Amino acid sequence: MDTDPATGLVAALDIGGTKIAGALVDGEGRIRVRSQRPTPAREDGETVMAAVEAVLADLAASPLWESAGAVGIGSAGPVDASRGTVSPVNVPGWRDYPLVERVRRAAAGRPVTLVGDGVAMTAAEHWLGAARGHANALCLVVSTGVGGGLVLNGRVHPGPTGNAGHIGHVPVDLDGEACACGGRGCVERLASGPHLARRALENGWRPGPDGDVSAVAVAAAARAGDPAAVAAFERAARALAAGIAATAALVEIDIAVVGGGVAGAGEVLFAPLRRSLGTYAALSFTRNLTVVPAATGTDAGLLGAAAAVMRADAAPDS
Amino acid sequence: MDTDPATGLVAALDIGGTKIAGALVDGEGRIRVRSQRPTPAREDGETVMAAVEAVLADLAASPLWESAGAVGIGSAGPVDASRGTVSPVNVPGWRDYPLVERVRRAAAGRPVTLVGDGVAMTAAEHWLGAARGHANALCLVVSTGVGGGLVLNGRVHPGPTGNAGHIGHVPVDLDGEACACGGRGCVERLASGPHLARRALENGWRPGPDGDVSAVAVAAAARAGDPAAVAAFERAARALAAGIAATAALVEIDIAVVGGGVAGAGEVLFAPLRRSLGTYAALSFTRNLTVVPAATGTDAGLLGAAAAVMRADAAPDS
Repeated sequence: MDTDPATGLVAALDIGGTKIAGALVDGEGRIRVRSQRPTPAREDGETVMAAVEAVLADLAASPLWESAGAVGIGSAGPVDASRGTVSPVNVPGWRDYPLVERVRRAAAGRPVTLVGDGVAMTAAEHWLGAARGHANALCLVVSTGVGGGLVLNGRVHPGPTGNAGHIGHVPVDLDGEACACGGRGCVERLASGPHLARRALENGWRPGPDGDVSAVAVAAAARAGDPAAVAAFERAARALAAGIAATAALVEIDIAVVGGGVAGAGEVLFAPLRRSLGTYAALSFTRNLTVVPAATGTDAGLLGAAAAVMRADAAPDS
Repeated sequence: MDTDPATGLVAALDIGGTKIAGALVDGEGRIRVRSQRPTPAREDGETVMAAVEAVLADLAASPLWESAGAVGIGSAGPVDASRGTVSPVNVPGWRDYPLVERVRRAAAGRPVTLVGDGVAMTAAEHWLGAARGHANALCLVVSTGVGGGLVLNGRVHPGPTGNAGHIGHVPVDLDGEACACGGRGCVERLASGPHLARRALENGWRPGPDGDVSAVAVAAAARAGDPAAVAAFERAARALAAGIAATAALVEIDIAVVGGGVAGAGEVLFAPLRRSLGTYAALSFTRNLTVVPAATGTDAGLLGAAAAVMRADAAPDS
């Protein structure tokens, strides 16, 4: 609880492979000041850090900056919260990069808390979104990758290194294809946007005149009844359902909250997801699990990073 | 902490489909008095309860009984610790059976704590066995079924209903065979003793003159180099590895402790298990996971039931 008692303001950073967002967030979850820069993801580590410093400088230009007592960071993973380092898959210039120490220096010595982006999204959904009031929940982001986080016993559960809830790399297909993580048959290999779109193409779906081969285009085709597009969403839903069922069997969650671009497809994803969950989650303590869309939208990363600093139920274990 | 401060004695019950064991256990994990009856698993619920009462009466005949301040129960599942009821798959006479209330009455009103048998085994291994000193662990029992339990943040994590760590019903084979639980492709469907032996037979393994078709016999054949027996253990190991990798991705464990009859096969199981773990657990925070045999043996259920009463780090969340 390193917030200023008068205002409850904290600084938040959401660091991904595409953009670096920053904000000053108040105790009600309102974003009071914001800034954003593209991530120079292919550049060297110091160039990436300069973009983070530029975002912090934008925030520091606000008269509210002096009231922000601490900084929370949600970063693309893997992270190592215990050592304060990050190694985002899509930012090769950062490997075991000492992000916590560098941000602390750039923020005039303020205390810094680091969590993975899946954990941050979970903290946001538990604070202000669809997981609010749930003591045991899984939150997922289904997008270019598949990430997630857990709420256990009423608290966000980051795990020792801040990576818990890593649903994207849960193996659900024993004899499945090799995954970029080095594993095999991972949820992400079947359910991420790019893999979903690839499967639709392999099955005979063809993009429209604009050539858009994204998961958004596959979703539009699925809504229009294209069988290969429908089948690709059903396969992704099946993999997500198996991963959610695995989580329910292991830690007894009562809700799964699904956000991210692919979840934006709506019922094209959620209908087969609910159906497949009936196939895989059949135990007395897993079969009443509900699945709902996320509620905090594109600010989830910032709000969750703020929650990790501000809220005792979202703070990493010390 | 309902133990007598002078002696630290508690009563423990380990209730399974084959036997009902009871003991008085001291604060050092020593079994001071013990009793056991066969489970009349095919009889009506009251007949099963009479066997539990007989075990408790044996314990009550000891002069130490008056010093035992509370009763811990580890029961075959599913259990519902929040309601104090059990519905063991292999004891059809008990469905939502109010075991906690019935044991409380039979034990002269002593407080009673209920956990699932996988959670009990985990509490025993964390107290006295191979998981001792580990803050985040998965313990598994690979036997007629596959069960398990979790240690998170240094505490046994039973979950709201006492069923967390249910590794046997984690789906690892998306398109796999239907499981008795109602799910599909579960770890248990691939790795339990009976399923392992069935697979060996299907692949061409033939039992010896004694006709023994148990997993123990398959293990002996595998050690002698029978290819179908070896392949059956490798397939079981692969399923267990995927389930362990799923757990590591979700909750960041650093050790998996494997007990139960099938684990008694030794390196015939553990060698392919460690190898397969390399295939499925490849993330920075999962790839250093170790797998070791359990250490508490056949008394794990009794010791774990005692731990659930006696030790703050194994008590269910209230």
